[in-house]
Amino acid sequence: MQRANESASASASASASADKFEEEVGRVMEQARELHESGASLLWKISNEEQSLRQKAISLESSIRRVRSSINSLLEEDLQRASSILTDGEAAAFLPAKAQGRFLRMFLGPINVRASRKEVQLKVKEEYNSYRDRTAFLFLLFPLTLLILKSWIWEGCLPAFPVQLYEAWLLFLYTGLAMRENILRANGSDIRPWWIYHHYCAMLMALVSLTWEIKRQPNCAQKQRGVELFLQWAMMQGVAMLLQNRYQRQRLYTRIALGKANRMDVVWGETSGVDGQLWVLCPILFVMQGFEAYVGLLLLKTAFVGVVTEWQVICCGILLVLMAVGNFINTIQTLMTKSRFKAKMKRSKSKAELD
Amino acid sequence: MQRANESASASASASASADKFEEEVGRVMEQARELHESGASLLWKISNEEQSLRQKAISLESSIRRVRSSINSLLEEDLQRASSILTDGEAAAFLPAKAQGRFLRMFLGPINVRASRKEVQLKVKEEYNSYRDRTAFLFLLFPLTLLILKSWIWEGCLPAFPVQLYEAWLLFLYTGLAMRENILRANGSDIRPWWIYHHYCAMLMALVSLTWEIKRQPNCAQKQRGVELFLQWAMMQGVAMLLQNRYQRQRLYTRIALGKANRMDVVWGETSGVDGQLWVLCPILFVMQGFEAYVGLLLLKTAFVGVVTEWQVICCGILLVLMAVGNFINTIQTLMTKSRFKAKMKRSKSKAELD
Repeated sequence: MQRANESASASASASASADKFEEEVGRVMEQARELHESGASLLWKISNEEQSLRQKAISLESSIRRVRSSINSLLEEDLQRASSILTDGEAAAFLPAKAQGRFLRMFLGPINVRASRKEVQLKVKEEYNSYRDRTAFLFLLFPLTLLILKSWIWEGCLPAFPVQLYEAWLLFLYTGLAMRENILRANGSDIRPWWIYHHYCAMLMALVSLTWEIKRQPNCAQKQRGVELFLQWAMMQGVAMLLQNRYQRQRLYTRIALGKANRMDVVWGETSGVDGQLWVLCPILFVMQGFEAYVGLLLLKTAFVGVVTEWQVICCGILLVLMAVGNFINTIQTLMTKSRFKAKMKRSKSKAELD
Repeated sequence: MQRANESASASASASASADKFEEEVGRVMEQARELHESGASLLWKISNEEQSLRQKAISLESSIRRVRSSINSLLEEDLQRASSILTDGEAAAFLPAKAQGRFLRMFLGPINVRASRKEVQLKVKEEYNSYRDRTAFLFLLFPLTLLILKSWIWEGCLPAFPVQLYEAWLLFLYTGLAMRENILRANGSDIRPWWIYHHYCAMLMALVSLTWEIKRQPNCAQKQRGVELFLQWAMMQGVAMLLQNRYQRQRLYTRIALGKANRMDVVWGETSGVDGQLWVLCPILFVMQGFEAYVGLLLLKTAFVGVVTEWQVICCGILLVLMAVGNFINTIQTLMTKSRFKAKMKRSKSKAELD
């Protein structure tokens, strides 16, 4: 009897605990449904409000463009301010995104890489700069080590493996840079398209150089002349990258600082305070571009004179010359834009003072 | 007098038009400020509401986990439904994202690749599948063409350039696949980590094979035996990829269709209707994995017997064996999970019928 009682009470308590569980599961279920619905409704609401802001942003952009085409230089400054608020402020998130481009689509598919917040975009840019900083050191160190070891241990003859490791690292590095720059562009950066094309060329060159047989003894000093020149050029590029990074970073900091003080003034303050550095940077860039073209022409010469007749030599030579010419043209254009902008600023300032 | 009048009226009209412009610029300025403010306030509101939903989602996830650990099998089905609503519904956007992993960070930096809408995530997956479809054909066609040309035109001796082109394409392809799979994972896909590691190995192998010198005459039939086997294996992989794609795609369609009918049932319907195909696919996968290991061992043998003693041969051999073993283990694990899941379903169904 007692046994039966015990078992009955056990089963009762079991069923009570089962009830409790059922209740709990029911509650969890209800919460999941509610959360699903409020999630869906929030996403819907966001998309509606975004839509309306997006249309306003587009129409404002077109009226800025319309007014700008028929305006005198005094009002231009105000209009430029309005344009800065639109493209540098939080409203920028609602302007139509620049197309992400084939390169990113090829590797990533149709995913969106655009950050909606300005702070995130600035963080992306800051991280890009620190990535460049980190790699610039390796850019110096890696070829330097190879060249030192070559004359010190390897008796004038580079072994294949470390050079190929370096080439593989270059391929990885340039792919990463090209991707990050495409992402920056999608996030509204004004990076010149050429610098991205330049990294495509560099990717191709790294790939081609991987298939390039590293010649052994005998006579490897002569056969490896191209590789040696290439390593020297890479070292110079490391120095130039470090200097460029310093310049870019200072520009960004100015931008952020001014943005905090007054977001509108961002564009005006952009070039101030770092002009001095630009005139140190430029000669180095030009020397490097000259050396790049020289290495390219030297490679082409060895190919056509007939010492080494592999297609890789010709291909790398053409790519180097192409990159040197493109870099030169784009550096000149950047300098011209900057000086034209400054002259304009001076003119409008003196006019304002006269008035 | 008339002249003076005319000029006065002209200057009056000029100043009127200047006024008009000033007004217009002022209006544009005002609009830009307003848009900036409403943009900022919308972004702030979104971030607040998201924050609250995010906390709810996290707490719901943990209560599902807590309840699940102490529950009987009948209620488990309901709990599974609640869990599906949470992870397959719109609320999923508010669960904390899986870490994006070093691979994506290395190439892309700190950008967010997670889509907040479920439809976009499904679109990403669909695009991934169509990318695999497109490349699977090339996977068949490219090595087939090389092998046909070899015996037809090149008289048994593969030239270096087309083979290196193929290897470069493989490197690009595997990099793209690894990136897309990492993105899928960040978007909540349940893809097994091994398949991503597998693509890292394949990337490494493509990179190593690029540095691998393609031997010429004399005796190239013997020296190129490794390359030939590799191409044959690549063709088989093409066939397997096509079959796998068909299977995966059907699974996804079932998922979407059921998701539209009733989002909660997504997980249950997942394996139904495609089991037949799985038993066609598996033997092909096993044969391919066997062949992969065979090619790897053959490469190791040629390296240790001493016909070709380059480090690339040893490296590729080890990688192939590693990939074959990993693929085999993971296919077995997938099959076991599936059959365990089915057995459980049957048990809980028959129990429900008994009750």
